[in-house]
Amino acid sequence: MDQIGIGLAGLGTVGAGVFKHLQQNRVLIAERLGLELAVRRIAVRDVGKRREVQPSAKLLTNRWEDLVDDPDVHIVVELMGGIEPAYTCVMRALDQGKVVVTGNKALLAEHGAEIFEKGAEKNVPIFFEAAVAGGIPIIKSIREAFIGNHIRSIHAILNGTSNYILSRMTEQAMDFPLALKEAQEAGYAEADPTLDVNGWDAAHKAIILASLAYGFWVNTNQIYVEGIEYIAALDIQFAQKLGYRIKLVATIRANEEGLVEVRVHPTFVPKDHVLASVNGVFNALMVHGDIVGDTLFYGRGAGQDPTTSSVISDLAQAAIWFDSGGKAFGFTPHGLYGKCLPIERVVSGFYLRLSVIDKPGVLAQVASILGSHQIGISSVVQPEGHEGDAVPLVLMIHDAAFGRMQTALELIRQLDCVKATPVLLRVLS
Amino acid sequence: MDQIGIGLAGLGTVGAGVFKHLQQNRVLIAERLGLELAVRRIAVRDVGKRREVQPSAKLLTNRWEDLVDDPDVHIVVELMGGIEPAYTCVMRALDQGKVVVTGNKALLAEHGAEIFEKGAEKNVPIFFEAAVAGGIPIIKSIREAFIGNHIRSIHAILNGTSNYILSRMTEQAMDFPLALKEAQEAGYAEADPTLDVNGWDAAHKAIILASLAYGFWVNTNQIYVEGIEYIAALDIQFAQKLGYRIKLVATIRANEEGLVEVRVHPTFVPKDHVLASVNGVFNALMVHGDIVGDTLFYGRGAGQDPTTSSVISDLAQAAIWFDSGGKAFGFTPHGLYGKCLPIERVVSGFYLRLSVIDKPGVLAQVASILGSHQIGISSVVQPEGHEGDAVPLVLMIHDAAFGRMQTALELIRQLDCVKATPVLLRVLS
Repeated sequence: MDQIGIGLAGLGTVGAGVFKHLQQNRVLIAERLGLELAVRRIAVRDVGKRREVQPSAKLLTNRWEDLVDDPDVHIVVELMGGIEPAYTCVMRALDQGKVVVTGNKALLAEHGAEIFEKGAEKNVPIFFEAAVAGGIPIIKSIREAFIGNHIRSIHAILNGTSNYILSRMTEQAMDFPLALKEAQEAGYAEADPTLDVNGWDAAHKAIILASLAYGFWVNTNQIYVEGIEYIAALDIQFAQKLGYRIKLVATIRANEEGLVEVRVHPTFVPKDHVLASVNGVFNALMVHGDIVGDTLFYGRGAGQDPTTSSVISDLAQAAIWFDSGGKAFGFTPHGLYGKCLPIERVVSGFYLRLSVIDKPGVLAQVASILGSHQIGISSVVQPEGHEGDAVPLVLMIHDAAFGRMQTALELIRQLDCVKATPVLLRVLS
Repeated sequence: MDQIGIGLAGLGTVGAGVFKHLQQNRVLIAERLGLELAVRRIAVRDVGKRREVQPSAKLLTNRWEDLVDDPDVHIVVELMGGIEPAYTCVMRALDQGKVVVTGNKALLAEHGAEIFEKGAEKNVPIFFEAAVAGGIPIIKSIREAFIGNHIRSIHAILNGTSNYILSRMTEQAMDFPLALKEAQEAGYAEADPTLDVNGWDAAHKAIILASLAYGFWVNTNQIYVEGIEYIAALDIQFAQKLGYRIKLVATIRANEEGLVEVRVHPTFVPKDHVLASVNGVFNALMVHGDIVGDTLFYGRGAGQDPTTSSVISDLAQAAIWFDSGGKAFGFTPHGLYGKCLPIERVVSGFYLRLSVIDKPGVLAQVASILGSHQIGISSVVQPEGHEGDAVPLVLMIHDAAFGRMQTALELIRQLDCVKATPVLLRVLS
C-alpha cells in the first residue's frame, strides 16, 4: 500500500488529537482509503515539553522549515494558529508543491486570497474543513455536494462559546458578565474570550463560507460584526415574551443584483425556527441552495476530537489528490469575483428597546420619526419595570434598510424623553 | 475546457430535474468544476411522449444499450428505478468501464454486493448520493468526511411519507387510514404507498448506510422491519402524555462484539430529542462517530430538486475521477466483511399497551410474567377510556433483549384478562 507522508506543524490540542487518532484508527483509515497516512515530521515550539501524546523524539523538530523542506513530506498540516509564522509556513509549503491542510480560520479570513492564488499558481489544493464548525462537514458539503447549486443564503451559529453564554443567559436570566464568568469556570470560554464574544471568531468563519458560496474573498472591512457583550438579561426576557430567542447568527447571502452580505450579530430568531433550539456549545448551519432547498447541519463546533475528525477527512482527500498524480484537483470555487452589499443597504426586521420617561406622548414622538423615514412598526410593547424615572419601551420593526434605521435612530436618540442608549437588534427573516 | 459525456437512463421526475438543472446552472458548474458536463444520450421508454423537459430528438433513444455502448458517454446515470432493466444496465455499464451514478435504493439494497464487486473488478467507482435522503449529502459525509471515524450508530428518519403521516396523526389526533388518505390527497403519498408505510423504503436506505458504516452489504433477510400501519391514534396520545413522539426510525449500530444491527420500526423518541422535532416530509440523520461525536443532518428527503442536487454532486465527482485518468478512486468502503446481530439479541426499552379487563390483580399477573423474565418496568399508566369491557394498560419497560420480551409477551397474550393483541413499540435509547 502506498504511503503518503505527513508533516504536522503544531502539536497543541488539535495537533495532538490528529496524531493520536491517526494511530488509533490507522487500520480502518488505510482499509477505507487504500493509502497509508504516515506522520513523518512534527514541528513544535518546545521539543522537550511534556505532552498528551509522546511521538518518538526523531519525529520532532522546533523548525517548521524542516517539514516544509522535507521531500518525504507530501502534505503539510498547519495547526499552529495565529497569523505568523503560519502564513509564511503555508506559503512556503505551497511553493514547494506540498498540499496544505489547515484549520486556521483567522489566517484564511485575512490571507485567503493570497494563499489560494499561490495554490492555483502551483496547482496545489488547500483543504480547510477544520476551520469552520469543527466536525461538521460543511466545507465539503458546500464545495462538493452543493456544487450544482447557487447558494441563496447561509444562516449559522458558528461560535460555541457565545452560544453557550446566550443559552445560560436565557435559561437562568443571567446578565452577560456573570454568564461569561460561569462559562470560563466550566471551560467553555477561554481566559481571553474577546474574539468569541465580540463576534470575530464567527466572522472569520463566515468569510470562509462566503468564499465558497460566492467564489471570492470578502475583505474583513466589508463585513458587519457585532458581539454579544452588550446584550442584557432584559432583552433576552423581552425576546422570550415576544416569541424569540437571541442567537449570535452569521448571515451570508446574495441579493437579486448578486451583491453579497456577510454579517454577524445578535439576532432575534423565532422560537420555532430550527436555529432557536441550538443550545450550549453546539454549532448549526442552515444552507439554502437553489436546487437543494433548505438543509441543516448540526454538531460540535470545536474541541479536540470533532476538529480532528475534519483534519483526517482533509488528509484523506489530500492523499487521494497526491496519489492521483495531482490530477484530481476538482472544485475550484475561488478566483471568481463578486461585490459586497454595503451594510446600510442590508434589509432586516429590528427589535428596538428604548429607555424613556414615563409620560404620555413619548410613543407618538418616536413613531413620528420612524414614520417619516418610511419605517413601519409591527408591534409595541411597554413591559413593566422602572430604571430610575425611566421605563422600557420595546418596538418590533418591519423590514427596513439599516441605513434608514440608523438615521432615524440618531434622531430618536436626541429626543429629550429618551434616557439611555437605545438597544437595536436584528430579527431573522 | 474538457467535456465529460453523460448518458441519462431514465427521464422521469429526477431525470428531468437533472437535465433541466445541468442546463440552468451550466456556467456555474463548469466554473467550479473546471470541466463541462455534457448530456450526450438519453434513454427513455417512449421517445414520442410529451415531457416537462424537451431535449433535442437526436439525444433520445428507447434503448438503454445505446448509451451504455456509446464511446462518447463516460458516465451512465441510472434513474430508471426498479430492479430490471436497471440491474442489467448498471452491470453492463461497469463492464464497459463507465462510471455509474444511481439513485436506485432498491437496486443497491438487493444487489449492492454484486454491483460493487463488478466495480472493483473493473476499477470503476459507483456513486449513489441520491439513493438516500434526497439532497442531504449523507453518503459523502459518511464516506469521506467521517473516513477517520468508527461509526458507532446512525439513527435516522428516512421516509418523508411516513413521517408526514405520523406528524399529521400527532397534530390532528387522526387514525392511520385517514392520515394516509389525506397524505395521498396532498401529494405526499403515492397511490400505492406500500413501501413507504411498511418501512421497506427506509430499510433499503438503512442497508446502504450500513454498507458505508460497516463495510459490508447486509442481506434484506437479516434486518428487522416494521411499518406504521398498525399505529393507533391512541398510542400517539399516550406517547405524548409520557413525553414522547412516535417516529419511524432506522437504527444502524454495532455492538461491542462488532455485530451490526439494522432495523426500522416505529420508535418512541423523547420529545426533547432532536429527531422528535423533525416533522412533515423532512428527513434527518443523527450520526455518531468515535471521533466526531454526534452530528445531525436535516433536509428534504425526496422530490425532484433535492434529489437532482445529489445527482449533480455525484456527476461532478465522477467527472473528476474520469478526468484524473481513473486514479482518484479513493474511499473504498465496501468489500470488508462483518456480521449482523440477530434481532432477538437487540436491546431497547419498550412501550407496551395492553387491552385488559378492568379488575384488580391484572397488573400483578402481567408484572409477574415480566419479572420472571428479568424484564423491569419503569412506569405504569392506566389511562382513561373504555373499549367494551376492556381498558388500556400502558407499561414503559426498561432496556431488554427483544427475544426475552417476545417470550414474555407470548405468555401475557395468553392471560384471560388480556383482550386484544398487545401493541409493542421501541423507545429510542
